[in-house]
Amino acid sequence: MKLVPIEAKSKSYNVYIEARIRHKVGQLLEEIVTEAFSSIFVITDSVVAPLYLNDVVGSFQNKLPIYTEVIPSGESSKSFATYEQVMTKALECGLDRKSVIVALGGGVVGDLAGFVASTYMRGIRFVQVPTTLLAHDSSVGGKVAINHALGKNMVGSFHQPDAVFYDPETLYSLPEREWRSGFAEVIKHGFIRNQDFLQWLQGEVKSFDQLPVEQVINLLERSLAVKANIVAEDERESGVRAYLNFGHTLGHAIESELGYGAITHGEAVAIGMIFALKLSETMFEIDLHVKQHENWFQRLGYKTTIPNKLNVNKLIGKMQSDKKAEAGSIRMVLLQGMEKATMLEIPPSMIEQLIAEQMEVDDVG
Amino acid sequence: MKLVPIEAKSKSYNVYIEARIRHKVGQLLEEIVTEAFSSIFVITDSVVAPLYLNDVVGSFQNKLPIYTEVIPSGESSKSFATYEQVMTKALECGLDRKSVIVALGGGVVGDLAGFVASTYMRGIRFVQVPTTLLAHDSSVGGKVAINHALGKNMVGSFHQPDAVFYDPETLYSLPEREWRSGFAEVIKHGFIRNQDFLQWLQGEVKSFDQLPVEQVINLLERSLAVKANIVAEDERESGVRAYLNFGHTLGHAIESELGYGAITHGEAVAIGMIFALKLSETMFEIDLHVKQHENWFQRLGYKTTIPNKLNVNKLIGKMQSDKKAEAGSIRMVLLQGMEKATMLEIPPSMIEQLIAEQMEVDDVG
Repeated sequence: MKLVPIEAKSKSYNVYIEARIRHKVGQLLEEIVTEAFSSIFVITDSVVAPLYLNDVVGSFQNKLPIYTEVIPSGESSKSFATYEQVMTKALECGLDRKSVIVALGGGVVGDLAGFVASTYMRGIRFVQVPTTLLAHDSSVGGKVAINHALGKNMVGSFHQPDAVFYDPETLYSLPEREWRSGFAEVIKHGFIRNQDFLQWLQGEVKSFDQLPVEQVINLLERSLAVKANIVAEDERESGVRAYLNFGHTLGHAIESELGYGAITHGEAVAIGMIFALKLSETMFEIDLHVKQHENWFQRLGYKTTIPNKLNVNKLIGKMQSDKKAEAGSIRMVLLQGMEKATMLEIPPSMIEQLIAEQMEVDDVG
Repeated sequence: MKLVPIEAKSKSYNVYIEARIRHKVGQLLEEIVTEAFSSIFVITDSVVAPLYLNDVVGSFQNKLPIYTEVIPSGESSKSFATYEQVMTKALECGLDRKSVIVALGGGVVGDLAGFVASTYMRGIRFVQVPTTLLAHDSSVGGKVAINHALGKNMVGSFHQPDAVFYDPETLYSLPEREWRSGFAEVIKHGFIRNQDFLQWLQGEVKSFDQLPVEQVINLLERSLAVKANIVAEDERESGVRAYLNFGHTLGHAIESELGYGAITHGEAVAIGMIFALKLSETMFEIDLHVKQHENWFQRLGYKTTIPNKLNVNKLIGKMQSDKKAEAGSIRMVLLQGMEKATMLEIPPSMIEQLIAEQMEVDDVG
């Protein structure tokens, strides 16, 4: 079993990575958690439930009351309505302050279940059992949230899990676009903190078809190590943690303007990373070999241009209402060099011009 | 100006008590807050708005963007619906991470506005400007929450304000039953931590009619000092902070069973305190002079019997789903002596018998 320690200021815990670990969640939880727990509430979604819910529930061997809630799969479940509905279920099941929530699924389940855990009776414990590659990023670091029509993750809190149990086997039931979505965050970690890792990825990962499980474990471990590093330095995003938003300012705007679900999170972030790299080259007059990265992205199936049905001014409007923004400015994470992230306020006129340049060009053949 | 320092583990701040301080909120906030703020969002209710909203808004002298939201007065505003509505308004106004929320009102406004502050963009700063006596208790210590049909304050978090500005003048617009409601928490602080203070209260406060402002300031300062003390020891209610629930286990059950609003919080807590005192005498075979306290309570206009339209089993059911409860037990704060609070698990059969004894007897004249 691989183990990545997360030393956040408010709590220390581990990510445990092992094939088939989903069958050992109950047993491991008993070993890890210092204070006894009274009951378990597994929150999962309609896609994951038929695949893995029984495995996780079975791992508790009926030793204590265990309840489950299955939410619809997809971003639309990160809503006020689902939040209230899950809270109602939790109260009906009689969860108390010593109950533990298990978030079994991707980022949506983790974010929603984590927000429920952070606010149920003013906060109870929870653990993450991520089942997507994308969730390797979101399951660590304690950021939990739901969406609002006016912006993604606008309502949430910081609430660290007690443990993260990562079963790489579960990733093999994912469609290719889900691998692609998650892999964008892996790449991001390389850009902002680990150039060697990025080069290794560029050498090893040519497609998402049949990556050996050993390589996946390796990749998870190295990517999580970057995240762990940053969260240890800055749990509350007052400094370096903001660098994890590399590629996300434009990425979020694209996701939001296309309507959640029309493009995956990682696909949008990939476009945003290319944009941030180009902007970095312009701002700092450096060469980051954007073209080379863009080629690799494209080989992996990412689009790197901005869908031309999107309106430039609306994109800019969304970037101005980003959580990093202050009083209508646009603040973005750029690279002053590889591994050298920085936060900069960018004039909207400059953004406008670069967006126009990166717009997808219609084939008029 | 009187000043009560609150040294919670996660944050230190002060309660400032002064007549007319509502006119100086803007100026004081500038002096106190270390990091600059970008905009102000005042949340208040329909009763307080016509009385004091202009005073508080005026105190900022148009130096920066200021937005206001007026929610309906009353417990029903601590709902998911109002929470979402206030979040929407906050997003529409473009509040960012450097905005500050001002909670102007009683406990409902403070709890709701505090929960909004704790979860807007994963947490922004807020200050409390309490306008009721009851809110002297709830505005300090960082407990924020909304209600669920299945229980009061079931959804919330811990989020300390940056300051509390207390203007005793505002209390004089309260009806007598609101004084009575708030005063129950003052009495509670005496019972659990400061016998001298309790004796002083019994000597000084014979009615709520025309208490001089100097006496009110005194009373606030001493009562807040007890709360400050307990919060400093135990911010997250893992230990002594639970003692603040003295009188609240049955109190909450009565409030909830009668329907929120049918009885004030403090009036219900007063009944709960008499119950807890009687139970303490029985459990520890001591004399706490319950009759004497009961007489004083009655002179102040409190009822001390349990309304006989309430069903004993339903009350017990509510007590079992209290946040302090674990796996269906009933845990209550009792006194082993004056100032000697302790938490004890009580057999439901014992509760049942004592409730029956304290039931109001119909006049059959």
